Amino acid sequence: MPTFNPPKRLLMGPGPSNVSPKVLEALALPTIGHLDPRFVELMDEIKELLQYAFQTNNEVTFPFSGPGSAGMELCLINLIEPGDKVVVCINGVFGGRMKQIVERCGGTPIVVEQDWGKAVDPEKLEEILKQNQDVNLVAFVHAETSTGARSDIKTLTQIAHSYNCLVVADTVTSLGGIELKIDEWDIDASYSGTQKCLSCPPGLSPVTFNQKAVDKIKNRKSSVQSWFMDINLVLGYWGQGAKRTYHHTAPINSLYGLHKALLLLKEEGLENAWERHQKNSELLCKGVEELGLNIFVKEEERLPELVTVTVPNGIDEAKVRSYLLNEHNIEIGAGLGVLAGKIWRIGLMGYTSNEENVKTFLSAFQDALKNK
Amino acid sequence: MPTFNPPKRLLMGPGPSNVSPKVLEALALPTIGHLDPRFVELMDEIKELLQYAFQTNNEVTFPFSGPGSAGMELCLINLIEPGDKVVVCINGVFGGRMKQIVERCGGTPIVVEQDWGKAVDPEKLEEILKQNQDVNLVAFVHAETSTGARSDIKTLTQIAHSYNCLVVADTVTSLGGIELKIDEWDIDASYSGTQKCLSCPPGLSPVTFNQKAVDKIKNRKSSVQSWFMDINLVLGYWGQGAKRTYHHTAPINSLYGLHKALLLLKEEGLENAWERHQKNSELLCKGVEELGLNIFVKEEERLPELVTVTVPNGIDEAKVRSYLLNEHNIEIGAGLGVLAGKIWRIGLMGYTSNEENVKTFLSAFQDALKNK
Repeated sequence: MPTFNPPKRLLMGPGPSNVSPKVLEALALPTIGHLDPRFVELMDEIKELLQYAFQTNNEVTFPFSGPGSAGMELCLINLIEPGDKVVVCINGVFGGRMKQIVERCGGTPIVVEQDWGKAVDPEKLEEILKQNQDVNLVAFVHAETSTGARSDIKTLTQIAHSYNCLVVADTVTSLGGIELKIDEWDIDASYSGTQKCLSCPPGLSPVTFNQKAVDKIKNRKSSVQSWFMDINLVLGYWGQGAKRTYHHTAPINSLYGLHKALLLLKEEGLENAWERHQKNSELLCKGVEELGLNIFVKEEERLPELVTVTVPNGIDEAKVRSYLLNEHNIEIGAGLGVLAGKIWRIGLMGYTSNEENVKTFLSAFQDALKNK
Repeated sequence: MPTFNPPKRLLMGPGPSNVSPKVLEALALPTIGHLDPRFVELMDEIKELLQYAFQTNNEVTFPFSGPGSAGMELCLINLIEPGDKVVVCINGVFGGRMKQIVERCGGTPIVVEQDWGKAVDPEKLEEILKQNQDVNLVAFVHAETSTGARSDIKTLTQIAHSYNCLVVADTVTSLGGIELKIDEWDIDASYSGTQKCLSCPPGLSPVTFNQKAVDKIKNRKSSVQSWFMDINLVLGYWGQGAKRTYHHTAPINSLYGLHKALLLLKEEGLENAWERHQKNSELLCKGVEELGLNIFVKEEERLPELVTVTVPNGIDEAKVRSYLLNEHNIEIGAGLGVLAGKIWRIGLMGYTSNEENVKTFLSAFQDALKNK
């Protein structure tokens, strides 16, 4: 069995995005111990850099040792106790996943349903909260990776707060790609992923909790169902102070990569990164429309970092994707769930989001549409 | 904030161990998608290589996307339903952790207590099982990383089976370091870690389940409490067959590293690796005794990959560790729990286990003992 030799792909799917050579280099730095004083310094720097990325001063801001889905579960199971009613907004796959997690940890989900491809409707949320005054948590997705729709996180949070609910916001695909201001918008808890607009390999989930969320967790009546994901225990290691208590062994080298990726983001500047994503996305949408195709999501709700394109009648979408992969080394994503076969998902996230990649893609896409 | 530049440490603690430059190199290979056909090939190869490392033909053998503690939780919560009585053998920190997880998923732990530093006593296990005929799962640790003791996994498993119990064995520190034969010894479920004798960075947990364990999971009355760790869902992605269903995004680059580390293990040969660990450990123990110190665990129960040394009276163990780290760039581990301050934990795991490292360590250790 030979050493694995991965092809060089242009990653324009729903994530992972391409990883900067500088981040790849950081992954290969020599491993040190997870209690090494130098590593503890690195942890502090990562927390500080994540606070910048999330635009927050939350002390409880750190990368959890698992992929984005683990971060989702971490946030929900720490904030939900058995019997709690939780409003979950569903406008794609990831809202649906939240609902399943709420159920598995003993909560009762109350669903705000929305057509896939649209933003969550704030009026629908308000309606549901009016009818259910005993709810104390609202969960929704900021940037739905399965559809390409952006919800109005600021307004949804305001409504939730006006009904005395805390908010859990999924920012997996928004962090680093579009405007996100945890403190200014008063988001109580949020989880993200490293393999989208932060352009790291997958495997870590940056999370942040404000004081209200931390208080709620500290005052739980029941213990969190998971030992691995219990914030009270995890913070013994990731919390403030010189003394770090061993909880689990942190993924050292993955954290080297995240540190470098966050440094690159800070170097560019968050606002500049948001602008870059927007600009390249507009270029992509224009090019796609010039090929005679339609963008699936209406302009004002469109995510710049994940553009969904409606598959025209008579085209086998899977063949187009295979052709792009095999002939052009370009990966794009398929539709999921009810959108399977109906859309392509074209990512322009993080390091992938540049003008040259847009041009390369458009020319290859034209070729693929012609040949399939 | 500058780019992180880790020191070059000789990692002789309880893990992570030093990582081969070839594995570090693999980590930095270009990221590809988690549904890329080439990546699916890599997944199949990793499963095959893990089957070799575990000495099993179990189809359900794969690296779970989390550290060893997540693997522990995965095994237990999939095999335990609320109300189940579970025998947990505790002879160190990790048995204690198992007990907490059993409680959190609604099981009732029945504990086989053993002094820390000793192997689990098979007679005690048999006694407890005789008294509790309604138990159907026994959990124990093969190689206790907190004490350096090796339990007789084969005999413990035979006893458990004779009382119609399945077995979950923690092989975090044994896989690749000492004899471990999942099929021959009929271990039903086991989890390990990558940062010990496999010499990868931490972050993944190789797991294996035999058919009896899989059947038990498939016939559960209740759903698994965790969405992220539900084996039924995880296997949609890691299972057999050409069609892989997206569950969570796999940690691509970490898996590149694991693939390479497993290739190196196969190249060396499992038996040769076991022998190397044994030989270098004997050299270490001899040298430590020549310095006038005592090994904490009696010879027949001693782990070669993790040697625990009793701290002599009048020595500040923390100062010795700091001196080794700061003056010699050598990391060793402290005692945990009841053994804090009483032992040092000296790892000779995977890539770290060679004669030169033993000599380097002994000379530095002598210096540290003299100077502190």
